[in-house]
Amino acid sequence: MGEVKLFRTWSSLFALRVVWALKLKGVEYETIYEDLANKSSSLLEYNPVHKKVPVLLHNGIPICESLVILEYIDETWNKGVRFLPEDPLARATARFWAKFNDEQVFPSLFRYFMSQGEDQDKAKENALENLKLVEEHLKGKKFFGGEKFGFLDLVFGWLARYPGIVNKAGNLKLLDKQMFPSLCTWMELFGDVPVIKENWPDEEALILKFHETRQGLGIYISSPN
Amino acid sequence: MGEVKLFRTWSSLFALRVVWALKLKGVEYETIYEDLANKSSSLLEYNPVHKKVPVLLHNGIPICESLVILEYIDETWNKGVRFLPEDPLARATARFWAKFNDEQVFPSLFRYFMSQGEDQDKAKENALENLKLVEEHLKGKKFFGGEKFGFLDLVFGWLARYPGIVNKAGNLKLLDKQMFPSLCTWMELFGDVPVIKENWPDEEALILKFHETRQGLGIYISSPN
Repeated sequence: MGEVKLFRTWSSLFALRVVWALKLKGVEYETIYEDLANKSSSLLEYNPVHKKVPVLLHNGIPICESLVILEYIDETWNKGVRFLPEDPLARATARFWAKFNDEQVFPSLFRYFMSQGEDQDKAKENALENLKLVEEHLKGKKFFGGEKFGFLDLVFGWLARYPGIVNKAGNLKLLDKQMFPSLCTWMELFGDVPVIKENWPDEEALILKFHETRQGLGIYISSPN
Repeated sequence: MGEVKLFRTWSSLFALRVVWALKLKGVEYETIYEDLANKSSSLLEYNPVHKKVPVLLHNGIPICESLVILEYIDETWNKGVRFLPEDPLARATARFWAKFNDEQVFPSLFRYFMSQGEDQDKAKENALENLKLVEEHLKGKKFFGGEKFGFLDLVFGWLARYPGIVNKAGNLKLLDKQMFPSLCTWMELFGDVPVIKENWPDEEALILKFHETRQGLGIYISSPN
């Protein structure tokens, strides 16, 4: 297996998908927690282009970008559980929606969280449009790839908790069962997978972090919980 | 092989990499030229999320997003030439830089092209920073993956012609041999690959298009060629 190290922060959802992937594959690894306000020289050395977590270090060689890391893990430790399906078309579909999550769904929810007033209304509209496309794609399926837990569940996994936590931190509701029945059903199913359930960051700490982030932006919070 | 159709525009560099990939694999296909000012109902049906070219239609099923399409082509027609290497680490490296091209290199050069004044100075600085990282990655290698033409050459291929054409259209120089010796050597080598050489859009038409785009933005062009 070699020596495996993961550079992460305690709260990053992009690192979290890598944690889940390593645990699901049964890969033993060492965790290095980074403080993004004071990045380590190792992080800057291993990810000089983006200077971000997660970074996976395998036998001293760094792999960066969480989607790239997920595929690397899937191809390197490929006995037993596989994240991506074998069929090229199903793989293309998974890669398409993973890209959509990272380039559109996450940024639109992040903008919604980091703004207020008219900007926030626009961001909310955009986030809901994106989530509706995800809902439509998920409709009629148990997991994103069908009957079997896989790659896209890891990619969209953050949706199962982070929007709810943001709602608690800033009274920002997005996902409800009426508008997103498939997503909400999947969120429960996904959250029940043992490796997933056992590896979320502490909810109270996340609520506090998000609450402080919004306060730091000078955003008035109507009803913090 | 099945029925293969490619929805493209004559000028899109994202479609062009798919054209090269199909030709290199010897896949026969039908081309459908789209007018983005008046998108066909087929394009809107096959790519409802992004409504963009390229779209590859294989036996009636659409695959969207050019990087996803490249991997699909590589996995579907996998006899003979392979774009991605076999080694998981080399694959991860290729995917990392492909993402960097699409998310940072291209957008920074596009901003440089579409702006003026201070905005343009900033965009230029950013574009040069990105290109220097690419230059550094390419240093000492013949092609992006080493000795063999592959995936990243298709992805970065646009750099071999488009910046030069933009320079001719708008007097916007970016790449020179002194600052980018490896990239400039690669550009010549890449441009000499027969399938590449034979499938560029018409240079004069591109110059005219880019010239008109900048004029349409009301940008004063100091010395159009």
